[in-house]
Amino acid sequence: MSAAFAFRLIATDGAARRGEITTPHGLVRTPAFMPVGTQATVKGMLPADVRAAGADIVLANTYHLMLRPGAERVARLGGLHRFMNWPHPILTDSGGFQVMSLSALREVTPHGVTFRSHLDGAMVELTPERAIEIQTLLGADISMQLDECVRLPASRSEIERGVRLSLAWAERSKQAFAGGEAGRALFGIVQGGDDAAARIDSARGLVDIGFHGYAVGGLAVGEPQDVMLAMIEEVVPVLPPECPRYLMGVGTPGDLLQAVARGTDMFDCVMPTRNGRHGVAFTRFGPINLKNARHADDARPLDAESACPAARDYSRGYLHHLMKAKEMLGGTLLSTVNIAYYQHLMQGAREAIEAGCFADFRRHVEEGWRQGDIPAAGT
Amino acid sequence: MSAAFAFRLIATDGAARRGEITTPHGLVRTPAFMPVGTQATVKGMLPADVRAAGADIVLANTYHLMLRPGAERVARLGGLHRFMNWPHPILTDSGGFQVMSLSALREVTPHGVTFRSHLDGAMVELTPERAIEIQTLLGADISMQLDECVRLPASRSEIERGVRLSLAWAERSKQAFAGGEAGRALFGIVQGGDDAAARIDSARGLVDIGFHGYAVGGLAVGEPQDVMLAMIEEVVPVLPPECPRYLMGVGTPGDLLQAVARGTDMFDCVMPTRNGRHGVAFTRFGPINLKNARHADDARPLDAESACPAARDYSRGYLHHLMKAKEMLGGTLLSTVNIAYYQHLMQGAREAIEAGCFADFRRHVEEGWRQGDIPAAGT
Repeated sequence: MSAAFAFRLIATDGAARRGEITTPHGLVRTPAFMPVGTQATVKGMLPADVRAAGADIVLANTYHLMLRPGAERVARLGGLHRFMNWPHPILTDSGGFQVMSLSALREVTPHGVTFRSHLDGAMVELTPERAIEIQTLLGADISMQLDECVRLPASRSEIERGVRLSLAWAERSKQAFAGGEAGRALFGIVQGGDDAAARIDSARGLVDIGFHGYAVGGLAVGEPQDVMLAMIEEVVPVLPPECPRYLMGVGTPGDLLQAVARGTDMFDCVMPTRNGRHGVAFTRFGPINLKNARHADDARPLDAESACPAARDYSRGYLHHLMKAKEMLGGTLLSTVNIAYYQHLMQGAREAIEAGCFADFRRHVEEGWRQGDIPAAGT
Repeated sequence: MSAAFAFRLIATDGAARRGEITTPHGLVRTPAFMPVGTQATVKGMLPADVRAAGADIVLANTYHLMLRPGAERVARLGGLHRFMNWPHPILTDSGGFQVMSLSALREVTPHGVTFRSHLDGAMVELTPERAIEIQTLLGADISMQLDECVRLPASRSEIERGVRLSLAWAERSKQAFAGGEAGRALFGIVQGGDDAAARIDSARGLVDIGFHGYAVGGLAVGEPQDVMLAMIEEVVPVLPPECPRYLMGVGTPGDLLQAVARGTDMFDCVMPTRNGRHGVAFTRFGPINLKNARHADDARPLDAESACPAARDYSRGYLHHLMKAKEMLGGTLLSTVNIAYYQHLMQGAREAIEAGCFADFRRHVEEGWRQGDIPAAGT
């Protein structure tokens, strides 16, 4: 609970990086996948099981927590680490993305954004300063600046306006953060939609202001993967190598490997838990939909060689039954399988980068996905 | 996986008994509370966490499992212990009670009962022989005879007809069970509604047939607690002391202590998990409804002195938040708290009986419930 934020680059392999982030609540090995604990819980999982699955850090959502239970309340209850019984590193987003995606009505002005709460319809204001205040009340190890996410497709002028506004808010976020508790970190967020020039402008502007780390936001919102990867390729060379790079809201296991190959260090996504609750397991054989009737009589576990008990100690037939019977345990087990698989993938990436064989590792993993699941005997 | 069913009486204190059941899958300390795993899962809990909460044995429902995923399928997948990853003792009920309470349409004949599945509307037949076959396919350590539960209030002639039918089915159940795998046990079920004479007739008839243990069924269906306790008092003296006695579907923590005081050894009830999912915690301060707004700012855990991490490591404010936000973890944590509290209560009863101070123990526990919850400071 004392070390200040720091990032150490341990190894590189091409553009891929193996590093380590120090935070007041412990270390984060990078490349890192952060499970999403939207409402101060990684859905369906005990925090000890999130840790056991290999996670060093989780993400929590400022937008949700400011509306319920409220940032001041979390602070009174001892801060977010205590609140959710996760004594390890926490990153909070700034709420900008959810304001765009969840609130029915929003008005953006240079001052900030006013929106209608999706919970009770109340009008709520979020400014760069308030977003920092909330994240400080929550006690985040890593806070994010408030940004404006422009919905794609968008015109060039809309994208440029979003970049300018986000840069102005970045400046104000840094000012507001300056008085904050020592050791915590603030990341800026690169915007610019699918426009390479706007992305570069955004990244340069942020680097001029100076942050502990740099995120790439406003991607994984429906654009093709090659657009997302192209934007990463434009932005990464502008960012200082001594700072971690975080690709927000991404993605599939394949997205992660592609982005790691292009020099990205951190990821978050609801996909492993959301898809798990809907019956889909991510495995080294690719995604497996346990709702499919072909699993009903399959006595094999998802992956007998997995280190994750949820993948190893339950038959596919049982997982199928739990999903058909709409039992909570189905979502819990498959969320656990998926978080563990994402962590396993990042661990493999870290080892491969250190060993200088990340490209081989990626080919091997992608080959496993392409081959697909091994059918049960007799089917 | 080898010891045969046996019951050993370790100590008595008045009518209360401390014992130990041996089964092919391990020991059950009595008095015992069996968490209910209706669809082959104790709702919302990992099996390892059910075990860690102190449970020696769980109950699973024949009615549900015969309809989905099907007993033959569970057998093909290695039996219920393997299926639900619970390598410890399992008791299965016979389906009789759920046929009464869940199926839209049922026709009872001397041969058996035909009912409409609540899942897909198919007509299904359950006979005493089929109920045994299903439980054998599931691999239950303790099976229950098929019985007919008469809905109360009922006329004397209805109750007597139910007793006669259940006795005839008891006889057939024993015949069907006789060819079964060594070491497994079969319990008879005393019926007779709220009629003492019918209860005694039923119990005597079962003892004449001879079972490994005796259950009292058809109670906890809405009758006053004093009627339930009066029926137990009528039945217990008729039952052989060398066999375990099981009060089916009961009940509140207070019910359990009252029934233990009257010589009952085993219990099952959905209350700890169902109420937990609805926000109610059972504690030594009595039940606490975490949905109540008074908990929103309460930094205290449910019980700082509990051995259960779910009761100790999360604030009431957090549990309140999880319930308001409808997060799965709320139901999981409160189910865990409640199963652990029920097990803690049974452990206390076992120790008190051995020490010869069960009456004092019960008074002390009931006094704690009466005093109620300790308000948060400043409220």
